[in-house]
Amino acid sequence: MEKGILLYEGKAKQIFETNQADELWISYKDDATAFNGEKKETLAGKARLNNEITSLIFDYLKENGVQSHFLKKLSETEQLVKKVDIIPLEVVVRNVIAGSLSKRLGMEEGTVLSQPIVEFYYKDDALGDPLVTEDHIAILQIASAEDLAILREKGLEVNKHLINLFDNLNVRLIDFKLEFGRTAEGTILLADEISPDTCRLWDKETNQRFDKDLFRRNIGSLQEGYQEILSRLGGASCTK
Amino acid sequence: MEKGILLYEGKAKQIFETNQADELWISYKDDATAFNGEKKETLAGKARLNNEITSLIFDYLKENGVQSHFLKKLSETEQLVKKVDIIPLEVVVRNVIAGSLSKRLGMEEGTVLSQPIVEFYYKDDALGDPLVTEDHIAILQIASAEDLAILREKGLEVNKHLINLFDNLNVRLIDFKLEFGRTAEGTILLADEISPDTCRLWDKETNQRFDKDLFRRNIGSLQEGYQEILSRLGGASCTK
Repeated sequence: MEKGILLYEGKAKQIFETNQADELWISYKDDATAFNGEKKETLAGKARLNNEITSLIFDYLKENGVQSHFLKKLSETEQLVKKVDIIPLEVVVRNVIAGSLSKRLGMEEGTVLSQPIVEFYYKDDALGDPLVTEDHIAILQIASAEDLAILREKGLEVNKHLINLFDNLNVRLIDFKLEFGRTAEGTILLADEISPDTCRLWDKETNQRFDKDLFRRNIGSLQEGYQEILSRLGGASCTK
Repeated sequence: MEKGILLYEGKAKQIFETNQADELWISYKDDATAFNGEKKETLAGKARLNNEITSLIFDYLKENGVQSHFLKKLSETEQLVKKVDIIPLEVVVRNVIAGSLSKRLGMEEGTVLSQPIVEFYYKDDALGDPLVTEDHIAILQIASAEDLAILREKGLEVNKHLINLFDNLNVRLIDFKLEFGRTAEGTILLADEISPDTCRLWDKETNQRFDKDLFRRNIGSLQEGYQEILSRLGGASCTK
């Protein structure tokens, strides 16, 4: 496998071509950003932690029958994925009220939902990734009603598996964000990453945060929190 | 009918008890507010215009089979309504992209939608009346899925009638906001007001605004715009 030209550089990852038309080379970055890029820092080790954690989680999901774009880990900070056209929606699944939902509804963070909910946010930095309804998505013409049903169903399926995974590690899965893409054949495939950058993960006993809120809210070391998740996941390269 | 104690004072109306337990006395105010109360002015004549227009529109809807809380006009600025418990949702129906939808989706104001859409906003000044999904409304426990189906259906039914009404007056109905309440018997009834405060109304030929955007955006006289709507509606007390 050869690394080709840089196709795209996002806030947390670089994406390169490979010598295979349908495969991409992803290189995680040490950059942490929050509040639509307003808060930004370079945190050494973050690239490795997110790459390792994402690789372990996508492997776990695959074992449980959930396909994703993930093909294999290439190095501590790089991975090979199947090429997809990303659908510009953040699919957010929530089990417990936190973050923007707490602000939107004026309800206390930590309130347990009677059942998980799925939200869609339009991935557009200039617009601040706004919440959108299914009607809005139809207007934007970025996904059909059938697509949204698939995204919702896959989101809830991933949620079920991740709750099991983290529950065994004494971690509560509060909420998380998924992204999906379309393969050349038109199949909708789970993509992007699943890491403490994209999940809220709280210790089951102490409610200690192990996720990006450590950075967003300046409440502790991001690397220590992410390392704790990697260690509990039994990551080969954990060094505590 | 006797006016009783003041029950509630909102940004645009005062609501009084009457000597009938199930009837309320509404007195419209000359106050105009926008941006969640940040912009505020007293505009002489606004109370009369909104009371007259709302009365005419609720009468028109009744003739077309759509019941509302409206019972009768009491004076130029007052009306009698059936008492309902307001459901804290703004039910917004849109035919053309404008205002917050234009900002949310990054799409140009004036873009015609292929079909009308219905949005729900949580009526909460402290939270800034946020957009909410049906899942959010379930969490807030303010309306059931069945209630929401009724609100959506009634919203679209009102839309159909108002489009007809305004089209005959050479006015385009861009969007509007409805509120609903529950009667003592538990029926969901159209409530609040329907006026240029709660609708976007553009002249069909010139796109001239006849609604609260005149005030929000400082683009003309609110009273002249509202008076134009009242005149075209054939209001008895129009004085141009």
